[in-house]
Amino acid sequence: MTNNREQALAYAHENEQRFLDELIDLVKIPSVSTDPEHKADMRTAADWVVKKLTEIGMENVAIMETGGHPVVYADHLQAGADKPTMVIYGHYDVQPGDPLDLWKTGPFEPVVQDGKLMGRGASDMKGQVMASIHAVDSVMRNGGLPINIKWLIEGEEEIGSPNLGKFIEEHQDLLAGDFALNPDGGIIGPDTPTILYALRGLAYFEIVMEGPDHDLHSGIYGGTVLNPANELTRLIGGMHDLDGHVTLPGFYDKVRDLSADERAQLAKLPINDEFFLKQTGAPVLHGEKGYTSTEHAGARPTLDVNGLLSGFIGEGSKTVLPSKAMAKVSMRLVPDQDPTSIYKSLVKYLTENAREGVTWKVIQHAGSPPSLTPVDSKGVQALAAGMKAVWGKEPLYRREGGSVPVVAQMQTILGMESVLTGFGLPDDNLHAPNEKLTLGPWYRGIDTFIHFMHNLAE
Amino acid sequence: MTNNREQALAYAHENEQRFLDELIDLVKIPSVSTDPEHKADMRTAADWVVKKLTEIGMENVAIMETGGHPVVYADHLQAGADKPTMVIYGHYDVQPGDPLDLWKTGPFEPVVQDGKLMGRGASDMKGQVMASIHAVDSVMRNGGLPINIKWLIEGEEEIGSPNLGKFIEEHQDLLAGDFALNPDGGIIGPDTPTILYALRGLAYFEIVMEGPDHDLHSGIYGGTVLNPANELTRLIGGMHDLDGHVTLPGFYDKVRDLSADERAQLAKLPINDEFFLKQTGAPVLHGEKGYTSTEHAGARPTLDVNGLLSGFIGEGSKTVLPSKAMAKVSMRLVPDQDPTSIYKSLVKYLTENAREGVTWKVIQHAGSPPSLTPVDSKGVQALAAGMKAVWGKEPLYRREGGSVPVVAQMQTILGMESVLTGFGLPDDNLHAPNEKLTLGPWYRGIDTFIHFMHNLAE
Repeated sequence: MTNNREQALAYAHENEQRFLDELIDLVKIPSVSTDPEHKADMRTAADWVVKKLTEIGMENVAIMETGGHPVVYADHLQAGADKPTMVIYGHYDVQPGDPLDLWKTGPFEPVVQDGKLMGRGASDMKGQVMASIHAVDSVMRNGGLPINIKWLIEGEEEIGSPNLGKFIEEHQDLLAGDFALNPDGGIIGPDTPTILYALRGLAYFEIVMEGPDHDLHSGIYGGTVLNPANELTRLIGGMHDLDGHVTLPGFYDKVRDLSADERAQLAKLPINDEFFLKQTGAPVLHGEKGYTSTEHAGARPTLDVNGLLSGFIGEGSKTVLPSKAMAKVSMRLVPDQDPTSIYKSLVKYLTENAREGVTWKVIQHAGSPPSLTPVDSKGVQALAAGMKAVWGKEPLYRREGGSVPVVAQMQTILGMESVLTGFGLPDDNLHAPNEKLTLGPWYRGIDTFIHFMHNLAE
Repeated sequence: MTNNREQALAYAHENEQRFLDELIDLVKIPSVSTDPEHKADMRTAADWVVKKLTEIGMENVAIMETGGHPVVYADHLQAGADKPTMVIYGHYDVQPGDPLDLWKTGPFEPVVQDGKLMGRGASDMKGQVMASIHAVDSVMRNGGLPINIKWLIEGEEEIGSPNLGKFIEEHQDLLAGDFALNPDGGIIGPDTPTILYALRGLAYFEIVMEGPDHDLHSGIYGGTVLNPANELTRLIGGMHDLDGHVTLPGFYDKVRDLSADERAQLAKLPINDEFFLKQTGAPVLHGEKGYTSTEHAGARPTLDVNGLLSGFIGEGSKTVLPSKAMAKVSMRLVPDQDPTSIYKSLVKYLTENAREGVTWKVIQHAGSPPSLTPVDSKGVQALAAGMKAVWGKEPLYRREGGSVPVVAQMQTILGMESVLTGFGLPDDNLHAPNEKLTLGPWYRGIDTFIHFMHNLAE
């Protein structure tokens, strides 16, 4: 087995350029799940993944329909019933490329610059999917897989996985396994291997507020009616107090307090105020009173405006009193908050505070519960040993502020815990212009996954 | 003279179709002053006006350069030194056409439907400029002008006349006269002739707020930095109290109280809550506590959001924490407020209330002081008599909420009062989609101006 492991690692090192070229091919496909104009590209990306999984020797490779973009499934179950079955999760969809004018390279024209692959999805998460595929390829070709593997690669992660829960419900036998590997995370630095044990949930809303039934001249009618843009700003402005607490009624009711132990563990991470200042480029940090930056980012709930639109936004001035205003507002949730309760909190707040003179509606765009995975599980420990073998040091354990709906769905529906990792870096510009993947840690990630599979079989 | 008057009226009636066709020609020119892409169209419109004024026999017709779009000047000064000299003011620029998808006809493809001319600028104020030109044409051709006339037709009214003050300063002799006619107003109903005696001023700003130096993933960084869109909504939301008073420091310092007499006069106008509900299509009215709707619209200052933009505004969801947010915010001013003091109020408010974590700047787009004209002046009384001759009833005197910078500039620089009128209607959709001009009152307006000129000479 040790021989196979070493041969697989050598194979991976020999194939580094091919591994990268294949990732570049995948990043070129603009698989933007939120935009109906990219529907055909979504299918092209799914087909590409099917072809690749078939090439490396996976079986039962299939595109499976959902109510939205399809899932790619595959498996390889010949290691024997005494060996663990791992479900590798991934997503082939990406965030939109806009604002395009802020990209230095085309979002879907991947190029390598200074050891980094530039492009939308290079890090989130086509790079992570390909690291898994390349690792399985390397192990397959050097003694075969010592464990059983299933693949679940969806196309709707960036829009909150609206159809994945139903898909998992309907295919519980197909997806059954001992645990899931979810590499949709990252490490906190190129020399600091990291395993996530908690993710925040997400509740994403669009508030549309209307006042007069058409745009008005702000001189002739200004002062006589409630301006929906004024009212919407007042209401959003009132969603926090000056200490950074969210004021929606009942927002904190289900929040699990952080224990003194956990706060002490989190304080050991080399993620400090300086780190967040550097990564964000903000003039100063700012967060909920009484918590550290690390806690703000991963262990406390938030409410952020993601988008605002009303009235005249062109150059110069237009004296319009707009008939409507729109805000996209999302909350990051921590255990044991849930999107349904948060929706109710938002609606209650608006019902109690929006004044006569405007009407409003709340559109629910995405929602997923938060999750926590025990760090002493077999999967986490096998991954930790792999990281130690590659980096020469123990990984750190951390919480992350992002949301991965499937992790919660696998816990709830399949009773399956996820091992969360990934080899992106904090400054990869996920969801922003100039997304990139640093190649050094990415190659180490492939090696780690090779160790991981052998460790699981031992 | 009476004979000339009757002949001029008959001429105007015979030429109704030609008068309308000429207005349609002018509305077809998309002279949008705020948009650099329409710079050539601005020049086309100015040339069109020059040609028209020349055709009707005006002298010294000229395009005169300013720091921005040019002014059209013309005169006809042969009535004698004992006759009054009237400066007719107008503007050939219009508001932008957007949002285009809400127009039922093209904004620059004027058509007549049900006795109304549809098109951007049909009412504000190409229709009013053409009514003046047609009236002067009618009087010229039927006995000649009994008064001296100068024309001042600018191209920057819709962007706040940034260069007109300087132009007037530099051409005080050229523009000298006894009073100005400014038909950039309207009447409150087709059967209710109206003369304005007060206009509100305008102070229009763009607030740009920045936080992190690039867009961030709202999961990974949400909670650690001040989101500029959250902060901007909070600050704008705090610009009013719940009674509808503006809370900027010093905002009301210079506001002249309404006398009991004036409030009683304003209460006589047939403009009530029902009127404003109908015109605005708002579910209920809303305004500063302690004042009527008529007072809200014309005699009290306001603060309105005219535009909002931040982050992701496309379809669906994008979990971005935006690096910046923008709001266009404007105030309507009443005597004796002034734009400079209001700018200082806004900056003081932001300085005192914006928190560390964001930076901001305020761009000044437009500013003009409010104005008041005595109703017992000769010009106003000559116009009132003209209205009575055409409509068979005395006009009402009112204040209006809109702003006409040139009125204040003529008062301040030339010591010249303006007679304010116009023949648009309150539901003309000025500055909004589907602007229109009702032709019945417009033709009556031409007749009124014919009487007006003869009344002035008597």
